[in-house]
Amino acid sequence: MAEAMDVAQKAQRVVPVALDARSYEIVIGRGVLADANARLAALGARAAAIVTDEHVGSLHAPALTAMLERAGLRASVISVKPGEATKAFSTLEHVCGAILDARIERGDLVIALGGGVVGDLAGFAAAIVRRGIRFVQVPTSLLAQVDSSVGGKTGINAPQGKNLIGAFHQPSLVLADTALLDTLPLREIRAGYAETVKYGLIDNPAFFDWCDANWPGIYGGGPEREHAVEIACRAKAAIVARDERETGDRALLNLGHTFGHALERVTGYDSTRLIHGEAVALGMAQAFRFSVAQGLCDPRDAERVEAHLREAGLPTRLADIPGGDMPGGIGSVDDLLGAMAQDKKVVGGALTFILARGIGASFIAKGVPADDVRAFLAQELAGSNGA
Amino acid sequence: MAEAMDVAQKAQRVVPVALDARSYEIVIGRGVLADANARLAALGARAAAIVTDEHVGSLHAPALTAMLERAGLRASVISVKPGEATKAFSTLEHVCGAILDARIERGDLVIALGGGVVGDLAGFAAAIVRRGIRFVQVPTSLLAQVDSSVGGKTGINAPQGKNLIGAFHQPSLVLADTALLDTLPLREIRAGYAETVKYGLIDNPAFFDWCDANWPGIYGGGPEREHAVEIACRAKAAIVARDERETGDRALLNLGHTFGHALERVTGYDSTRLIHGEAVALGMAQAFRFSVAQGLCDPRDAERVEAHLREAGLPTRLADIPGGDMPGGIGSVDDLLGAMAQDKKVVGGALTFILARGIGASFIAKGVPADDVRAFLAQELAGSNGA
Repeated sequence: MAEAMDVAQKAQRVVPVALDARSYEIVIGRGVLADANARLAALGARAAAIVTDEHVGSLHAPALTAMLERAGLRASVISVKPGEATKAFSTLEHVCGAILDARIERGDLVIALGGGVVGDLAGFAAAIVRRGIRFVQVPTSLLAQVDSSVGGKTGINAPQGKNLIGAFHQPSLVLADTALLDTLPLREIRAGYAETVKYGLIDNPAFFDWCDANWPGIYGGGPEREHAVEIACRAKAAIVARDERETGDRALLNLGHTFGHALERVTGYDSTRLIHGEAVALGMAQAFRFSVAQGLCDPRDAERVEAHLREAGLPTRLADIPGGDMPGGIGSVDDLLGAMAQDKKVVGGALTFILARGIGASFIAKGVPADDVRAFLAQELAGSNGA
Repeated sequence: MAEAMDVAQKAQRVVPVALDARSYEIVIGRGVLADANARLAALGARAAAIVTDEHVGSLHAPALTAMLERAGLRASVISVKPGEATKAFSTLEHVCGAILDARIERGDLVIALGGGVVGDLAGFAAAIVRRGIRFVQVPTSLLAQVDSSVGGKTGINAPQGKNLIGAFHQPSLVLADTALLDTLPLREIRAGYAETVKYGLIDNPAFFDWCDANWPGIYGGGPEREHAVEIACRAKAAIVARDERETGDRALLNLGHTFGHALERVTGYDSTRLIHGEAVALGMAQAFRFSVAQGLCDPRDAERVEAHLREAGLPTRLADIPGGDMPGGIGSVDDLLGAMAQDKKVVGGALTFILARGIGASFIAKGVPADDVRAFLAQELAGSNGA
């Protein structure tokens, strides 16, 4: 047992998130979940409620339950339906009630075992039950490992837009076991990859170059995967440490998200058409094209971004969305602009975008004129369906 | 106008709540709401959503709306049904949606215009819409002015117990206009008085003596009322400043609340039988009797507390609850104990109470044996219905 621990720990990469009293560690590597007894026991809880979805739970909840019990914790499992529709008030109410029924007290734990949907939902429930219970993220998708499990943003969707209801609630521990990604469908890997390569596009051109050369290793489960997760987590941890509540720099992480959220909204959060990471990929391609249209960015950089995302199997044009090449298939300019205006990054009615002066040179652009956005969207729609 | 302001400001008492970046002021006095233009304008918001109940809204929302518009803010009104049943997920969802529909952005305001129910609900909605919007408390009941509007506790009830879902979210300003209490029914004044005299029982025996002599002035709307609100707010502000998230001393504010919450629960939150302040009064009387039973407190202090509360028209015995003198009218010992065990102050299965060594000498008693509580409750029930 002691030897197995040594080997496992050598394979672990630990990324600290520095937030004073709310600091925590992200533990990354193959098999880190199975070896987490000691880390979980060290949190000093008596009980844990595992929140998971029916699919992920059937694969991983029994092993996690057994491990918690070995670590001396009373464990219970709360299961929700997979999919974005689960991030709703009705499921939140159900999960909060189930946590209370499981007699989880203030010193106990909520464990989010799943992708971004489960992490956001379970983290939000942990934030509000008894006005705050500690929680542990066990992200089981690439997207959750590189993005949503880190940084403390939790929440649900509203009819008015995505993630409009929520809380900042930092986890006490993140266990990113890259072996859990081996069973992930290719489409989910691609979606998570979009949020990974995003860190290159924001401020790390060398990481973009590395991704351009090494993405097949990330997809295939080679050691490139652990490296990419670590680089992404370090980048996100650094931004979160200097701007936990998104009053400044943290908005950079929204590269591709203003366009992306609007696309998710106008396609009705229909995962057969568009999942979050795909929307972000398309949104990043749009952010670069819009930056070119604004005279900010060399067109060759936008073309290189688009070519790379396409090579990695991600959508970059509205026509790539199923039905997006039909007139009205993804709505009108007004539909898209309306969806953006409800986005939470609106300040005083003006639009805020993350734009780029080049690969690795993104910045927060406030007060972008709505007319410029309108003209750009009209061009994008014309390019996709000739309307 | 300038002269009117001067007079009004002389009559204002301002209690600061020191919480670093989240510090704010409680402004107390007759007519402070009508003169709050400048204070509200200074918050720099563009718009405000007033959350109120149908009863309070019909009395005070038009004047507040007009005043906000004079201060240059776009104002909208969100109305909910009065009563404890409003502190539920369904109403929370409705209020959050209405705040989003009103296009309230991060820099804008949610204004809670009402008693404790509206303050808790609106404050919680403000805490979670867009992961946090600033809010202003305009408490319209004595209970809200001396207790619930100060300190940042917000939340809703769950089937498992009161206030089990919520957030710590400090207001940016509290406007406690004591003139608004002139239309309050006597029963509501009494209920608020219970939370007022509580501060004497916790750690201020001189304030208890003052209350014992001056309570009719508080009830009648004399200057004693402003004094009592100020003393209560100062006491609460001091405790909140040193323990915002209730990891220590703040629990003292729960004097009477562990018994009280259990009573509210077993009577089904039925306001025809018991409202919160009444439950607290009865709970405080019980806390003193239980302290006597535990050999901690001179019986004469418990008798003095009971005599004072009875004189002020508040319940102190289970038989005072309508139906409480019938066998089973307020449930069994197990019902009461079960309701307490679900209370959020349970740690590791042991019961925590606020007990007293005398008037003004309350303390946090952890690990109180369940058997002692059981014996005490059996005695209380026997005293009320001879079972």
